[in-house]
Amino acid sequence: MTYRQLDADGVVAYVQASGLFPAGAAVEAREIGNGNVNLVFQARSDGRALIVKQAVPYVRCVGPSWPLTLDRARIEADALEIQNRHASGLVPRLLHRDDDLALLVMEDLSHLDLMRSGMIQLRRYPRFADHISTFLADMAFYTSDFYLPPHDKKALVKRFINPAMCQLIEDLTFTDPYYDAPRNIVNPALRGYLEQTFWKKTALRLDASKMKYKFLTEAQSLLHDDLHTGSIFADEENTRVFDPEFAFVGPSAFDLGILVGNFIINYVSLDGTDCTDAQRRDYRRYLLASVEEIWDLFRRKFAERWARDATEIIARVPGFLGQYLDQLFIDTIGYAAIEMIRRTHGLAHNADVDRIEDLQRRRDVQVRILELAEPLLMGRTGFDNEIGGVTQRVKHQIG
Amino acid sequence: MTYRQLDADGVVAYVQASGLFPAGAAVEAREIGNGNVNLVFQARSDGRALIVKQAVPYVRCVGPSWPLTLDRARIEADALEIQNRHASGLVPRLLHRDDDLALLVMEDLSHLDLMRSGMIQLRRYPRFADHISTFLADMAFYTSDFYLPPHDKKALVKRFINPAMCQLIEDLTFTDPYYDAPRNIVNPALRGYLEQTFWKKTALRLDASKMKYKFLTEAQSLLHDDLHTGSIFADEENTRVFDPEFAFVGPSAFDLGILVGNFIINYVSLDGTDCTDAQRRDYRRYLLASVEEIWDLFRRKFAERWARDATEIIARVPGFLGQYLDQLFIDTIGYAAIEMIRRTHGLAHNADVDRIEDLQRRRDVQVRILELAEPLLMGRTGFDNEIGGVTQRVKHQIG
Repeated sequence: MTYRQLDADGVVAYVQASGLFPAGAAVEAREIGNGNVNLVFQARSDGRALIVKQAVPYVRCVGPSWPLTLDRARIEADALEIQNRHASGLVPRLLHRDDDLALLVMEDLSHLDLMRSGMIQLRRYPRFADHISTFLADMAFYTSDFYLPPHDKKALVKRFINPAMCQLIEDLTFTDPYYDAPRNIVNPALRGYLEQTFWKKTALRLDASKMKYKFLTEAQSLLHDDLHTGSIFADEENTRVFDPEFAFVGPSAFDLGILVGNFIINYVSLDGTDCTDAQRRDYRRYLLASVEEIWDLFRRKFAERWARDATEIIARVPGFLGQYLDQLFIDTIGYAAIEMIRRTHGLAHNADVDRIEDLQRRRDVQVRILELAEPLLMGRTGFDNEIGGVTQRVKHQIG
Repeated sequence: MTYRQLDADGVVAYVQASGLFPAGAAVEAREIGNGNVNLVFQARSDGRALIVKQAVPYVRCVGPSWPLTLDRARIEADALEIQNRHASGLVPRLLHRDDDLALLVMEDLSHLDLMRSGMIQLRRYPRFADHISTFLADMAFYTSDFYLPPHDKKALVKRFINPAMCQLIEDLTFTDPYYDAPRNIVNPALRGYLEQTFWKKTALRLDASKMKYKFLTEAQSLLHDDLHTGSIFADEENTRVFDPEFAFVGPSAFDLGILVGNFIINYVSLDGTDCTDAQRRDYRRYLLASVEEIWDLFRRKFAERWARDATEIIARVPGFLGQYLDQLFIDTIGYAAIEMIRRTHGLAHNADVDRIEDLQRRRDVQVRILELAEPLLMGRTGFDNEIGGVTQRVKHQIG
């Protein structure tokens, strides 16, 4: 079947024909989600719902003037299959894939919170640190050279060559925010600070370039590669990581760093939240405790998998694991800072900050984020590999 | 056409049918070379000669019990095409390829020395440092992210996924020599030293593991990946690097390191050479001067290409190039030491050392190589990125 773009009626016909609901059942479909990049439909029949996601051959929110490969749907389905294998229960179940139509059918998770929205409303997710550290440790270990036989690792690299999606990150995350680039979306009240201060920081640009170069060249494990809190559904009991269309084999610290960066953005953005000081203080305490717990659990779970399941002989060499995790920590802090920077004035912003309507107030939060990102990035080797040093720094600088 | 193994008559028929010589010309073919892994024929007609190289589906010197992918001929032809484009005149011209037969036809270079053999006879190659530094700088720069557009770099990685050949290096270079592994070929007189001393060096094994991990995960540029002096033809005027069947996108320092390691092996092995002390001293001076020249010219030529042809925006960031080349230097010394170690008691030895027939005398040279490799590997960050520090260390320790 050749590619064609589906509308709601087309989705109904497609799911009816594909046997995803009982034969002859009445099906309804409606478009949902903000659909920045893809088409997302919910199809319902007799109280049961499915998600149908279809890639379009361009960035949806921009239009055909910004073409984007349909291969991302193949990548997303491939990644979901692998994530379901290694981190079952922490990603959507993939019910059906159709690579010709660049289409996936997944379980419906709309009863869960989009985690970013929940965090803006100060909601807590008591199981999250445990769940996400399992997801991260499973993926960072079971798709690495430490576990996969050499041929399988190389086949994984080949299968997830994902140049178009990688280039979006290379450009939008690592390059544009360090220059007055046309695709940046700059709060007018922030522009003066960027021009007079931020874009003149050459030492910062050098360290950002080092993080970019690692992203370009380090093929460590299969990344989700877009692991912000808008790619996670959660409630008190559940966590589901979705949207792995950027997946490729890259530096393991990148997923950890993006996630930590988004927690810190949320932390700073509480300056603009309408709540009591006590609520703000408590939620901030929760956020930093989560960051500490995520890293500490990740480190412990990675080491457990290493001890139990490593096949690469390197794993028998005393000292390697500790130094490996130390470097992963350093890179995690580096990528967290990179994410904080790109979310303030790159193309893609966070609702945590952009919901602050007063542009001057928003600017103050953005400057605080940028001025916190800088010592994290530049000082990433100086925390003695203790996440507590990082959270102390956040607390000390932001309050 | 399906694969079939050619003999000399088959080669004659093949080159006659393929138009590589004038129609109707009489052709002779004979097998040449030591053919460790492949079949190599020289085909002659009317005073003109060609080389016909065919891969067999196993390691030739072992036999069908050790299967090896025929895809290595496709990799070799692909690599030669790219090397001919970026480093024209420094590699054999590729005249014809037949991927179905796993066969390449190249210009005949048998009028040149196999460089390893020449170096054992104390021959000098006055143009070599200039030529090889050009080859190395061209390949390390023009196949890297600094020059290639992002999509092309990823396509290059994909095209040169070469798991079978990489695994040979992973196992034979980075793993077996650090253990009493069955594939090691150990001089009986050396075994005691290995068992009582070398194989107990856990700190050394840790650093060797770090170099292995970089080899597994760092996709910087297209490597020749077997750049010892037995992969180079040379005379006073010419240099040709051949046999790139191990090529893949890996750490740029690996080719440099292997080459430097082989120069140092030759340096130490002169203990066993039948020559005057003055000849030995002079040749050793030549070897260290060559090592210094290779690195210094490489560094300068890489920087020239960077300044002239870089497309990646990182190249505009002050400070990046210097730190990048500093790391490349450190890794070069690390890989040089790795090569020195694996060539003493791994599967593949160097004639430089193994031609010493007295096993006790050979053992003494091997121990000197191992005891020089250790401070180079462990101390690789301590030479202040000056190649002169390394050559001083060699001279100081060996004499």
